[in-house]
Amino acid sequence: MNKKYSIGVDLGGTNLRVALVSEEGEIVRKIKKTSSDNVVETLFESVSSLMDGGVSGIGLGVAGLIDRKDGRVLASPNLGNIVGIDLVENMGNRFKLPVFIENDANVAALGEKKSGAGRGFDNFVLLTLGTGIGGGIIHNGRLLDVSAEVGHMSISHDGGRCQCGNIGCLENYASARAMISKAVSMLEKGQDSLLKGCCNGNFYKLTPEDIYRSALEGDSLSREVLREAGRALGVGLANIINVLSPEAIILTGGLIGAWNIYVQEAIKEASRRAFKELADSVKIIPSSLGDDAGVVGAACLVFMNLSQALSDKQ
Amino acid sequence: MNKKYSIGVDLGGTNLRVALVSEEGEIVRKIKKTSSDNVVETLFESVSSLMDGGVSGIGLGVAGLIDRKDGRVLASPNLGNIVGIDLVENMGNRFKLPVFIENDANVAALGEKKSGAGRGFDNFVLLTLGTGIGGGIIHNGRLLDVSAEVGHMSISHDGGRCQCGNIGCLENYASARAMISKAVSMLEKGQDSLLKGCCNGNFYKLTPEDIYRSALEGDSLSREVLREAGRALGVGLANIINVLSPEAIILTGGLIGAWNIYVQEAIKEASRRAFKELADSVKIIPSSLGDDAGVVGAACLVFMNLSQALSDKQ
Repeated sequence: MNKKYSIGVDLGGTNLRVALVSEEGEIVRKIKKTSSDNVVETLFESVSSLMDGGVSGIGLGVAGLIDRKDGRVLASPNLGNIVGIDLVENMGNRFKLPVFIENDANVAALGEKKSGAGRGFDNFVLLTLGTGIGGGIIHNGRLLDVSAEVGHMSISHDGGRCQCGNIGCLENYASARAMISKAVSMLEKGQDSLLKGCCNGNFYKLTPEDIYRSALEGDSLSREVLREAGRALGVGLANIINVLSPEAIILTGGLIGAWNIYVQEAIKEASRRAFKELADSVKIIPSSLGDDAGVVGAACLVFMNLSQALSDKQ
Repeated sequence: MNKKYSIGVDLGGTNLRVALVSEEGEIVRKIKKTSSDNVVETLFESVSSLMDGGVSGIGLGVAGLIDRKDGRVLASPNLGNIVGIDLVENMGNRFKLPVFIENDANVAALGEKKSGAGRGFDNFVLLTLGTGIGGGIIHNGRLLDVSAEVGHMSISHDGGRCQCGNIGCLENYASARAMISKAVSMLEKGQDSLLKGCCNGNFYKLTPEDIYRSALEGDSLSREVLREAGRALGVGLANIINVLSPEAIILTGGLIGAWNIYVQEAIKEASRRAFKELADSVKIIPSSLGDDAGVVGAACLVFMNLSQALSDKQ
């Protein structure tokens, strides 16, 4: 029998990743581009360049709220220009292949289940910790087809307004955006910090990496920013544990580089807050596929849906 | 073929309900007792009195964290004396029938799915609104076997401590206990209210019914208490909508008697907060089985598990 492949697309907020992936979840070839204004055009070109005779379908993981039935993106704070475009039908017509769509964090969870840190677990929640916070839920070994927008769970009913319209979202306290905004506001107030030496003194260009590096050099402002964001993440983790009682929570995204301060603080806070019986049995671990989880999971979406369709027929 | 029955038990915080239920989800006979110190003894006697030749098993819905595999109650704030007792094995030995155990709000969700307000939905969340707040999740027509402790989701990361150990739990702001505590604290401060005339002036005996009645008579303190609890419930509903994107949220428990103020306020708040695309498509409706949902669902647990075991064998 011929080896089967599919093309997985991860269309996050800032990057477009496309890969040719085997049925075993191995990446054969991959492309990374920056999401531009012409994101749809770039997407079609990238998929085209990886197309191969053995490809059985295309899987799309897109940052946003997805209507699985109609194959449309309902809302996407960072990719506004693809809302409403019928990506599934357009790609299907262009490439004459079945196309499936899911939320990007949901497919990352699928990817970790297939060949990453989630292989040994049947019930876990994946969190993407970056500019924003996303989530995907694996239950009884399968992707739970729900929105899983855990970053937009309010942990402060009377807190600040989130760009999604809600108030006090987890994302407002525990994401990279939140960390930078907190650090900038402390620097604007004139607090002393090693961060003043970063970015040639223009602290509006700070990154989470700058904050983590300064924290490791003993900068107290940076340590406080990371710890505060970590405690907020811990509140979110405790909520997830109390509601979904997962065996594991897998963390991915740029911010896990700051594991030793930010995530450690989150784990401490979660274990103080969640039901002891549930907190004691959950493992909080880093992703093992990193940035590849999305394309692997998006490709899995194809194999999963095609084998489901086959078994429905039989 | 003979008609099949099972016995459903709903062991909530304050009441014990036991019923003989048909495979169609119809209650044949039922008993209601107050949970006493001898709750295990009362439970055995009640089950015994409903026992019948056609009974194929016993289903238990218990308020607390359940270990489904080992058939034990891990934690139960209101039923401390049954924690650690092996109810499943003890009942199995006594009645020589298969016994299954679940959380009480989870079985109530099953009951509503079987023959209540959830019949027309494959994806819904049930919330029990009483002294505390519990939850159960139906996904793709089946009970999601997770803790679903939505009452212990923090909506105020720096709020007051909950009896579960967490901080700022939904239950602390939106339950009957929260309403009464708020009303009492306002009355203690000397605020004027019709509630002063209730309970012969002893406002430590107030009930949510007193508050709702006064609110309907135009009492502004009572209206504010109900509205504030409703807004907090709305924050919880928005979190549920953003994370689980259900088709419906079914509300049950004593507090839905105050639907016109408390729940209406919650629905308004949730629709202001949740992703518009998700909020627009969710129906927030009352339970139709009311207090019977638990026993019906607990009985369903038996039929469900027995038919699963049968299909696993085949």
